[in-house]
Amino acid sequence: MKIVFIYVIISAITINVFAQNMIDSQSYGMNEVSDCTPVVLKMIQDAKENNISVIKIAAGTYHFYPDKAYEKFCFISNHDDGLRRTPFPIIGFDGLKIEAENAKFIFHGLIVPFIIEESENIELSGFSIDWELPLASEALVVARDEEQKTFDIKITEKQPYEIRNGELIFLKEGYEHNLDRSIYWDPETDAVAYNTSNYGPANTRSNPSIVRFSDALNYPYDIDPILPVNNYRGRSISVYAEELEPGIVRISFSGNNVPPKKGLVLVAKGLNGYNRWAPAIRIKETDDITLTDVSIFSAGGMGVIAESSSNITLDGVDVKKSPGTNRMLSTSADATHFVNCRGTVIIRNSEFSNQLDDATNVHGIYLQVKDVLASDKIGVRVGHYQQLGFDFGKAGDQIAFVNPDNSYDSVFTATLKSIDKRNKRYFIIEFEENLDLDQELYYVIENLSAYPDLEISGCKIVNNRARGVLLSTPGKILVENNYFSTMMSAILVPTELGLWHESGSPKDLVIRNNTFGDCCYGGGKAPVISMHTDAGKGSYPFQNIVIENNTFNTFDASVIGANNVKGLNFQNNTIKRSGNYEPLFPNNPILSIENSKDIILKGNKYESNFDNTIKMDDFSKENAVVDEKF
Amino acid sequence: MKIVFIYVIISAITINVFAQNMIDSQSYGMNEVSDCTPVVLKMIQDAKENNISVIKIAAGTYHFYPDKAYEKFCFISNHDDGLRRTPFPIIGFDGLKIEAENAKFIFHGLIVPFIIEESENIELSGFSIDWELPLASEALVVARDEEQKTFDIKITEKQPYEIRNGELIFLKEGYEHNLDRSIYWDPETDAVAYNTSNYGPANTRSNPSIVRFSDALNYPYDIDPILPVNNYRGRSISVYAEELEPGIVRISFSGNNVPPKKGLVLVAKGLNGYNRWAPAIRIKETDDITLTDVSIFSAGGMGVIAESSSNITLDGVDVKKSPGTNRMLSTSADATHFVNCRGTVIIRNSEFSNQLDDATNVHGIYLQVKDVLASDKIGVRVGHYQQLGFDFGKAGDQIAFVNPDNSYDSVFTATLKSIDKRNKRYFIIEFEENLDLDQELYYVIENLSAYPDLEISGCKIVNNRARGVLLSTPGKILVENNYFSTMMSAILVPTELGLWHESGSPKDLVIRNNTFGDCCYGGGKAPVISMHTDAGKGSYPFQNIVIENNTFNTFDASVIGANNVKGLNFQNNTIKRSGNYEPLFPNNPILSIENSKDIILKGNKYESNFDNTIKMDDFSKENAVVDEKF
Repeated sequence: MKIVFIYVIISAITINVFAQNMIDSQSYGMNEVSDCTPVVLKMIQDAKENNISVIKIAAGTYHFYPDKAYEKFCFISNHDDGLRRTPFPIIGFDGLKIEAENAKFIFHGLIVPFIIEESENIELSGFSIDWELPLASEALVVARDEEQKTFDIKITEKQPYEIRNGELIFLKEGYEHNLDRSIYWDPETDAVAYNTSNYGPANTRSNPSIVRFSDALNYPYDIDPILPVNNYRGRSISVYAEELEPGIVRISFSGNNVPPKKGLVLVAKGLNGYNRWAPAIRIKETDDITLTDVSIFSAGGMGVIAESSSNITLDGVDVKKSPGTNRMLSTSADATHFVNCRGTVIIRNSEFSNQLDDATNVHGIYLQVKDVLASDKIGVRVGHYQQLGFDFGKAGDQIAFVNPDNSYDSVFTATLKSIDKRNKRYFIIEFEENLDLDQELYYVIENLSAYPDLEISGCKIVNNRARGVLLSTPGKILVENNYFSTMMSAILVPTELGLWHESGSPKDLVIRNNTFGDCCYGGGKAPVISMHTDAGKGSYPFQNIVIENNTFNTFDASVIGANNVKGLNFQNNTIKRSGNYEPLFPNNPILSIENSKDIILKGNKYESNFDNTIKMDDFSKENAVVDEKF
Repeated sequence: MKIVFIYVIISAITINVFAQNMIDSQSYGMNEVSDCTPVVLKMIQDAKENNISVIKIAAGTYHFYPDKAYEKFCFISNHDDGLRRTPFPIIGFDGLKIEAENAKFIFHGLIVPFIIEESENIELSGFSIDWELPLASEALVVARDEEQKTFDIKITEKQPYEIRNGELIFLKEGYEHNLDRSIYWDPETDAVAYNTSNYGPANTRSNPSIVRFSDALNYPYDIDPILPVNNYRGRSISVYAEELEPGIVRISFSGNNVPPKKGLVLVAKGLNGYNRWAPAIRIKETDDITLTDVSIFSAGGMGVIAESSSNITLDGVDVKKSPGTNRMLSTSADATHFVNCRGTVIIRNSEFSNQLDDATNVHGIYLQVKDVLASDKIGVRVGHYQQLGFDFGKAGDQIAFVNPDNSYDSVFTATLKSIDKRNKRYFIIEFEENLDLDQELYYVIENLSAYPDLEISGCKIVNNRARGVLLSTPGKILVENNYFSTMMSAILVPTELGLWHESGSPKDLVIRNNTFGDCCYGGGKAPVISMHTDAGKGSYPFQNIVIENNTFNTFDASVIGANNVKGLNFQNNTIKRSGNYEPLFPNNPILSIENSKDIILKGNKYESNFDNTIKMDDFSKENAVVDEKF
């Protein structure tokens, strides 16, 4: 689009409007031909200065550019951090409704649609978010040569590209990415391609390169191996591109995978560390916020991420493909994500589809105890580089000290007094009490006060890469009346310290009345519902899990996998076989349970006709009540 | 070095020390085996909380790592911006002396030795700054093949490297760079190699790459062509590396240049946009600051950069090679640099040698007027990406509006009321008066209130890449009793809007009693003293220039080049020929003067025996008094 600059004299109009506690986009001259960023900033500034609590935005298609947008430095969990620009800086508000009426917001380049921070009582409704040119890229597979390990893709004229140093680079407005993190969608099913992990290339840096004298970097502190500057050392380009004609590019790769089938759509977002620029809606330190009737068709990261916030409701928030385009992809990371939230998180009546990562993930974050600075003071390190600078907690929070060598149970708790973020990776934390630390042991800490109750109901979660929902909160969790069909597990209950350091083992989880369609069809070996931890025997991070009255109608055998659960009630579920795909792991057990106790299996119907129904180790068996025949 | 962690109980000791208004490093346990960052932070914090005005640091060698350092986001002019860590955050102090006694500070990785902001009455003395592994890299040329356009370099075991994608990458602690911006030093002269610009490669991205459909990026705002994301589009690797044996790497390149001579030292700092990470000493919004007896042996950027500060004295501040090492390089950018400073800037008795850019540059910054938002309000854009977010001025400052199509003269001035930095590139500026803008014309603005008087005296400025001193302030300038021998011009008086947008045309400049040794030996065509502008005829940005009693003893012909000067008094200078190198441009005139008036040439001795003494255009001749014979 070509931007037309229109200046509207608005002072006379707005004086009347202010009297009604309402601002109206038409009075401000918000229109379909200009960059709407300055006028939206003016509306928000006026609302703040005049205590206006409603901004109404009329139906229309509105464009936003970063050039004149409000900017601030953002640490955004699970994203890359840095200066970020937005036309909607909802910062420091108490009571603001943005009521749009079928408004289509189209964004250009590097921009965050909404930054919502340090606010209360916020309601957003009635708009969609899309990008003119999404930050991730797509191209149709038009030919393949299995022997040569090449395939050809067609890139549309709307997507500029470059062949640079033999690599295909997708060019954006102020941004670009290569073929890394590529995956395939199938236009026939609208979903990630069946057994997509069989197709190459998934990453572009598989060739080893010569590294010499690296012992000279004799660094005394922890090195983060996945920080980009370290992650890409010793690795050279392994995927090459050659232009056959304008718009047709041949990709060649090595390794064990085969080229993708003709007709699939390649989706790529580029190298980790650069490919999660920002979410569509960023929420931080905000209490009581409701999003209703919001559609997110694209984002250079997640759809909605909330951190250190409470009482968040998403009702009718869809993350899905942009209508009227040929795109397969919605957001380039999780549809939604909640870190260190409190109160309640409610996700209702929403669709999360075609995004490049999970539908949601609700969790806290473990920090690594590195230094004992005083009897009541420790130095801690953030484990993952996309959690740097995050807000671990506030004064009065109960902090659990965990010695993860044995289990994820709390060894003792203490009351947080203050946090001095010395830098984004190293914090000094003071407590109200003297700490009972054994200096020989390694500890991590988690914030027990920063976990929400969670409801996910009436949602459709389909056709995305990765999992459906990741549940990591000891608060009350209800997952009810949803439909799932996801490339990996539909529900994952994880506890691990190997990569993401996400904390919050469920202690009260109900999964009922859901339907699970085809799941785990991407090629990985996983059950539809997975409760997985690397904790040792005799430790039970997962407790009081009820899975009842669900229908499983997937193509493959494995439905439930669990270890280290205390109290699992799996009852009155029906397990069928969809027949939509050839099973990938037909010999897997339908249920697999290890190192667990207080298991009840009853009233389930096993109708999928796979050979292995239940696999339980002796300890779990001894502690199970199985009153059914199969 | 291997770090040993020592915790010292200091509370009892410091209580006594506080009473003396002094903190002592030994009482705090600062030692030669630990990471000294935490203890220095503690000293600075205690000084602030207890109004201590002296921190004494005992003689010794002290190491600093970024891991536990204080961090803040920094826009640093002429550097790359971002989060920066320091062990010395001197922020918000009124009255602080850091008195070290022969203290050697050794830094590791990505760290800024000193961040000094929003302070007054600061004195630093008695220490040196060096890096264990500098961020820029060096390697000895051990062989060459002119026909094949290759040469071999020897990399020491202290410098880890990688051959990645055919490119040589120098690996650092949390950082790395390639061969871009490479240049050669000559160990025999300690200086940049004679005619170094004849040697390849200077940059690593000269091969064109295929770029397709870029018209689709139909962006309505200004695109910055040298912003890294734009600068490297359409360019592929043109310099390749092959390891012959560990530590010996063959470099091949294309183009017109020849391989460097055997025995020269290659110095490289990597691609622009990534190679100016931070200075050694960053000063911002600080008044009355003195640095005495400070040596800077390395930095991943400039030695000292001061912005928006006043009354700055550098006395005995040396930027030079690290003693006891084989390194040729000191800092990887300018030795010193002053932007938007006020009051006086004094540089005395200092040596600036072997750095990768100018010895100093004193200037303001032009902003581009983009929008007229009201009769007294404009929207402006920052021109260069390494000036983003800078502090243009404060309320009450006199701002000149310049229409650079004709000249750099002020069309009118107005009084600054407020600046709203909407983002790092776009500011909204309000004025006290209505502005007299012609909407058909293009304007830039400069801050007339943010220029200092400047004295540079008793300094030795030698052996560096680029120029000696760049003088861009209309304040009173005195350059006296210095010795210069620089690869390009010793003194440059520039006014341009093409690249750096640096403002401040001298109106009162005295250059006297200096000695100029070999200058401009790098291969470029420039005079020893250059006053150069792209302003049109009849405009005189440079006024009242006195150049007297200097000795020029360089190897080449050209000594003075000037255009658009009003009032140039060149008198009683002696011009000799050093004979140290073969002249590169022997037919250049010794003096070249264009579009100038009120020129006086008298009492000079022309003893260099080049053919062309003075070249003046007719206009300049008519307006000159030349009372000497040559």
